[in-house]
Amino acid sequence: MLLYNSPVSGNCYKVRLLLAHLGIPVERRTLDVVDRSNRPELLGDLNPALRVPTIVLDDGRPLAESSAILWYFGEGTRFVPEDRYRRAQVLQWMFFEQYEVEPNIAVVRFWFHELGGVPAGQQSVYESKVAAGYRTLDAMEKYLASGRQWFVGDGMTLADIALYGYTHVAGEGGFELDRYPALQEWHERVSSAPGHVPITA
Amino acid sequence: MLLYNSPVSGNCYKVRLLLAHLGIPVERRTLDVVDRSNRPELLGDLNPALRVPTIVLDDGRPLAESSAILWYFGEGTRFVPEDRYRRAQVLQWMFFEQYEVEPNIAVVRFWFHELGGVPAGQQSVYESKVAAGYRTLDAMEKYLASGRQWFVGDGMTLADIALYGYTHVAGEGGFELDRYPALQEWHERVSSAPGHVPITA
Repeated sequence: MLLYNSPVSGNCYKVRLLLAHLGIPVERRTLDVVDRSNRPELLGDLNPALRVPTIVLDDGRPLAESSAILWYFGEGTRFVPEDRYRRAQVLQWMFFEQYEVEPNIAVVRFWFHELGGVPAGQQSVYESKVAAGYRTLDAMEKYLASGRQWFVGDGMTLADIALYGYTHVAGEGGFELDRYPALQEWHERVSSAPGHVPITA
Repeated sequence: MLLYNSPVSGNCYKVRLLLAHLGIPVERRTLDVVDRSNRPELLGDLNPALRVPTIVLDDGRPLAESSAILWYFGEGTRFVPEDRYRRAQVLQWMFFEQYEVEPNIAVVRFWFHELGGVPAGQQSVYESKVAAGYRTLDAMEKYLASGRQWFVGDGMTLADIALYGYTHVAGEGGFELDRYPALQEWHERVSSAPGHVPITA
């Protein structure tokens, strides 16, 4: 099994984290996240969006979108609830993550972490992403602060893995996580679970 | 069952379309998509993202994110494949839709359709969204033009319902759908399926 990967991508990390928890080995092929000129050649037949993560299963079939890959490997394990409503809640948080967390927190982090700052001409975009990123963290904090240990049900699910991916490194984009005690406790809870691996692994 | 709805939202339309196909009645409560000041009061306890669609099930439990709502009602029907890999492919396209289609095509359509044009100061954002929207339509056209009738497998799935929601009204955002013959044929295929309802219904 082959994972088209980036070491800095939170989306790729989610896949690596779940596979580590499940004890499933995967070969990695690193793609550049700044120079994307070879993407059509490498991913053109595998992923219409030409993004990482893209995975090629042992039988050669490709799968893309981090959350869809998580679902493929998570179904039938403790990371996807058996109850239909809870399964839908897990997906609700995974879609929330891709719509609210990724375009704001992940992009700002990418700019600081990989490009050294806000790209020319993007200052107003940056400001709106920071505002939206904080609204997103506010919503997560409020949800957790009502006494929840995990985002869905009584144990770690794909929702936690998906939401952890970028929020635990939001500080690398300048977001002040000290404002969010419940979120930080939840980050601790995820990272101290048996089988956890860090984003740098 | 109560759907917090907007008549113009493609995300809400997806839910209405699936429920129509499944013959499930739902009460609607229309929320304003321009003046969102009452959202915390109405949706604060139901949806951390304060967006429509949000649905309240008969037993009072809430569910949000259009694609998660689709999954809740679609599981166990012909709209979600029994095969694990195909299920993951359906989710792949649903995440593609929320990440690539919605933030670009839906937002540009919203600006023209609801606000009468590009908001002040957003011209460069507009241009990047138009470019990303066309890249997204290009990717869908290429995928369909290889001879596929539907996005996953041999029949309509949640992937088609999700992707149809905003792409069939992309013209309202100024996108030229005439460039995309395979996409237009697929739009026809979706809209001529028994049980179909238009976005205006």
